[in-house]
Amino acid sequence: MAAGTRINLAEKLALFSERWSPKIVESVDDYEVKVVKLEGDFVWHKHDEADELFLVLKGSLHMDFRDRQETIGVGEIIVVPKGVEHKPYAAQECEVVLLERRGVVNTGDAGPNALTRTDIERI
Amino acid sequence: MAAGTRINLAEKLALFSERWSPKIVESVDDYEVKVVKLEGDFVWHKHDEADELFLVLKGSLHMDFRDRQETIGVGEIIVVPKGVEHKPYAAQECEVVLLERRGVVNTGDAGPNALTRTDIERI
Repeated sequence: MAAGTRINLAEKLALFSERWSPKIVESVDDYEVKVVKLEGDFVWHKHDEADELFLVLKGSLHMDFRDRQETIGVGEIIVVPKGVEHKPYAAQECEVVLLERRGVVNTGDAGPNALTRTDIERI
Repeated sequence: MAAGTRINLAEKLALFSERWSPKIVESVDDYEVKVVKLEGDFVWHKHDEADELFLVLKGSLHMDFRDRQETIGVGEIIVVPKGVEHKPYAAQECEVVLLERRGVVNTGDAGPNALTRTDIERI
C-alpha cells in the first residue's frame, strides 16, 4: 500500500472477528494506529511509559479506573494517561481505534498473560 | 478536565464555526488530537519533520498530492507522510480529527500566511 492512501476503518474491521487482538492499520511517526474488537473483560494494567488513545466506532466501551468509571460511546475518545491503572470492558461487541507508541504491549505491566499480544499483524 | 475523561468529538466541533482553524481537544504523549472544520481550498505545503493523520467525521475530504488525489469519507483515515506535498480541500463543510506532533504548524513550509495558525486554542 502506498504511503498516503485512504484507509477505511470498517473495511479493516471486517477482516477479522477475534476479540482483544489489535491489528495495525497505519503508522504516524513512531506511533501505530490499530483497530480492535472488544467484548467482555480485559485485565487491570498500566503503561508506565506511554499514553493510550481509544476512539469508539461501534458500541460502548467502559473504562474502569481505580476510583471511577468512564463510558465511551461512538464518536468519543478517551486518553488513558501513562502510569494510570485501567481495565477496559465491553458488555457487547465494541469496535475501537487505538493509538499508541510502537512497541507498547497491550497488557502493560500485567503481562505476559493469555491476553498479551506481542506479534501484532498489520492488515 | 481530569486526565482520562471521555471527550465527545461532535460536542467539541459544535463549539466553533470557523474553517481551517484547528482546536486541540486532547494530548497523547507529545502529540495533539485536534478537531477542525474544512471548507474550500487550503494551500500546498509539507511538513518535513512529522507525519499527519486525518480522520473524517463528516463530509468528504479531498487530498491532492502532486501525482494523484485521494478522497477520504466518513470513517476513513489518511496519513500524509513527512516531506510529502499535499493540499487538502473540501467542496462542502467537512469535519476532521487531526493527529500531529506538538508544535507542527498547519501550513508547514508554506507559512506563515493568512491560513497559518500558531496560537491554537484548547477547547
